[in-house]
Amino acid sequence: MTSYDYDLFVIGGGSGGVRSARVAASMGKRVGIAEEYRMGGTCVIRGCVPKKLLVYASQYHEHFEDAAGFGWTVGESTFDWSKLIEAKDREITRLEGLYRKGLVNAGAEIFESRAELVDAHSVRIKTTGKVVTAERIVIAVGGAPAAHTALPGHELCISSNEAFHLPELPRAILIEGGGYIAVEFANIFHGLGVETTLIYRGREILSRFDNDLRQGLHNAMVAKGIRIICEDVIEAVANRHDGELTAVTKKGEKLVVSQVMLAIGREPNTKGLGLDRAGVATTARGAIIVDQYSRTNVPSIFALGDVTDRVQLTPVAIHEAMCFIETEYRNNPTSPDHDLIATAVFSQPEIGTVGLSEEQAVKAYPEVEVYRAEFRPMKATLSGRAEKMIMKLIVNSADRKVLGAHILGHDAGEMAQLLGITLKAGCTKDDFDRTMAVHPTAAEELVTMYAPSYRFKDGVRL
Amino acid sequence: MTSYDYDLFVIGGGSGGVRSARVAASMGKRVGIAEEYRMGGTCVIRGCVPKKLLVYASQYHEHFEDAAGFGWTVGESTFDWSKLIEAKDREITRLEGLYRKGLVNAGAEIFESRAELVDAHSVRIKTTGKVVTAERIVIAVGGAPAAHTALPGHELCISSNEAFHLPELPRAILIEGGGYIAVEFANIFHGLGVETTLIYRGREILSRFDNDLRQGLHNAMVAKGIRIICEDVIEAVANRHDGELTAVTKKGEKLVVSQVMLAIGREPNTKGLGLDRAGVATTARGAIIVDQYSRTNVPSIFALGDVTDRVQLTPVAIHEAMCFIETEYRNNPTSPDHDLIATAVFSQPEIGTVGLSEEQAVKAYPEVEVYRAEFRPMKATLSGRAEKMIMKLIVNSADRKVLGAHILGHDAGEMAQLLGITLKAGCTKDDFDRTMAVHPTAAEELVTMYAPSYRFKDGVRL
Repeated sequence: MTSYDYDLFVIGGGSGGVRSARVAASMGKRVGIAEEYRMGGTCVIRGCVPKKLLVYASQYHEHFEDAAGFGWTVGESTFDWSKLIEAKDREITRLEGLYRKGLVNAGAEIFESRAELVDAHSVRIKTTGKVVTAERIVIAVGGAPAAHTALPGHELCISSNEAFHLPELPRAILIEGGGYIAVEFANIFHGLGVETTLIYRGREILSRFDNDLRQGLHNAMVAKGIRIICEDVIEAVANRHDGELTAVTKKGEKLVVSQVMLAIGREPNTKGLGLDRAGVATTARGAIIVDQYSRTNVPSIFALGDVTDRVQLTPVAIHEAMCFIETEYRNNPTSPDHDLIATAVFSQPEIGTVGLSEEQAVKAYPEVEVYRAEFRPMKATLSGRAEKMIMKLIVNSADRKVLGAHILGHDAGEMAQLLGITLKAGCTKDDFDRTMAVHPTAAEELVTMYAPSYRFKDGVRL
Repeated sequence: MTSYDYDLFVIGGGSGGVRSARVAASMGKRVGIAEEYRMGGTCVIRGCVPKKLLVYASQYHEHFEDAAGFGWTVGESTFDWSKLIEAKDREITRLEGLYRKGLVNAGAEIFESRAELVDAHSVRIKTTGKVVTAERIVIAVGGAPAAHTALPGHELCISSNEAFHLPELPRAILIEGGGYIAVEFANIFHGLGVETTLIYRGREILSRFDNDLRQGLHNAMVAKGIRIICEDVIEAVANRHDGELTAVTKKGEKLVVSQVMLAIGREPNTKGLGLDRAGVATTARGAIIVDQYSRTNVPSIFALGDVTDRVQLTPVAIHEAMCFIETEYRNNPTSPDHDLIATAVFSQPEIGTVGLSEEQAVKAYPEVEVYRAEFRPMKATLSGRAEKMIMKLIVNSADRKVLGAHILGHDAGEMAQLLGITLKAGCTKDDFDRTMAVHPTAAEELVTMYAPSYRFKDGVRL
């Protein structure tokens, strides 16, 4: 029997890596974990967590405005970007410390270094050059914003990584992309007072979401003053004499902005990782190919999280890590369950969604009922803010099962989390109907839509 | 066959009355409805709706404070109570108009008058003295704050009715009561800058709620500066020479305040309604006794909502009205379902709850698991506000069913609504565990509490 330095070596200190390392170490395994940047990964360092803190910051100006309708007179407010970034950075550092402490307390050895594969059981620690061996290796190096090097002037552009650390708040920003990162940052910057334009090559933002919500969010963003250009792309970015940038679009529009942010997708972080040396197979995009137990084609090497390009979400990476632990260390083979994952877009208004969109449901089932409510939230009646909530339930007529639930508006993310339980448990529309309303809430609409708003039969709206 | 003036006459234009009148009228029934005050009832006119608007208003000062942690500097703010009340009243008038319009459009005849029973099929319209007859009579006159006439100085005190229309915001208020109305108003007044004291004869506020949440809310209220006196009552209230009031408690404390609000319970509005003439039986408290179909002992007379003192909630009254319609006019006998009703207390922090409290579950089941999380919400990490969320799931070990779900913190009401579906559908803890987290949300804690915090066996905590 070969003797390895470690039972488990984890490359990457993000959500999936830290979870697998920490739990394995707490079970008495000898665990090493290498992270080249900061412990916590995309989620903690430059993703979910700092993003949500920025979202909170960007909502205050609406609170100040809304207060007037409730009898408040609020003095002039000013915003200091660097104060926010400092506060955010302190919190991120605190969280990073917690991640680190969790690993240390569990007995894992931390390498503050990049690590690369040498072979099926060996990893090179870049800072020292030392090669360590492990019975199992987990690759959890995540992803990074796609660079778009084909764009002239791409070196003048930022990604979400830099957006979290801009030295100052831009006067005007152009964001390219139609995914949740582009949409969230457009709302953040607009909320903080930046003249904001979103440009997206597709016909409508947030592809794959329910069309109704995509349009609803689009309209709401435009109504608050965000410009959205669809079916166009940036063709060139150039410096101007005054320190700003010019961006020219394919359709010939010329925009003058202070920053251009590219959010056109994310790529697996596999370049230079030694996958070829170890013989680990990847897709053309560089994502590591894994089986249902997160195992690569090399039996001793596993991959978790964004680097596998399955579902790029923090809880999914953590879930995959826990399944890896069950399978490899608890003799309980467990496959990650990627079905019916509820998600949120922290746009303003927010989106919360789980299950099939109306469009997907209509393709998948012969008879579909759509229950839809669009209403002004109670708070808006006094604030005077022109906002609408949209709530939709997509129901399979045959067995009454709720196939999809979609919400646009305040707290949509919190609601999606709990609606996720109902879909996962296979609840029917009758279960919703039987539930007494909680008054006054927004969510009560979800249990008081007794009659379908419209139906589909064989793909045709009746 | 006797010929009546109406198929249905409804006394009381609140949630249950309006719903039954409107739906019956829309089915072609000849319907009359009498309301002596304003259409909409407690909920719309001086309950749920205006209360929630006041809650919103009272939250802004925290937004102003919290903004600093996110980089904002906010100028001084002032609050104008009369502006809020005017805005609230405009909204209430608008809603009242919608209720009225719904009735008129459905073809119901509205009597802006008190109405009293004459006999099993007759009602006297007080303003005109005219007696009208009806095949069926629905009594939906609701309830009113208990007056507490035994208290010396009770005539100097206000109830929640007057709280909605105070000419000015009091300097200091003493609120007696431990129910949700007392607790909500204590938070409202405190949030608007009023020195607030709550006095309650019981050992802890909000009896019947989960103990953990009761204590958590109590502590949170005290931490923000609300004084709470338990196990004491007001014994006398008197005028002072300076226009304020003195309240003396049973334990001998003397408080000087500008207003004393009594919220010690609500009583059915049945006095002088002619119930005796018509032979309608009531409880000792004056609540109308009904069977499972909301029928009184007089076959032609029904009662819905708070006047029956079953569950005093708007959605319950509406549900009872719909069951009455099904039973009497659609040949589909339907009993109101009062089981597993989710509710919210719009305190600050909010409470959302459904199902059994820990204490109730432990009495009802031999083996109970409690899953509990207490954490600082993400927003508080930057605002610096000292607040904790509490989330609890109470699970029956035998079949893994979730028996109760209890939340203290932001959006607890919205969450309780959706947790209500899961309990109504009989979801198990495994359904919760199988659900992927939505990150970052608060509700994700509810699906990531994998191990019980503690257990009970035969009533003993292990």
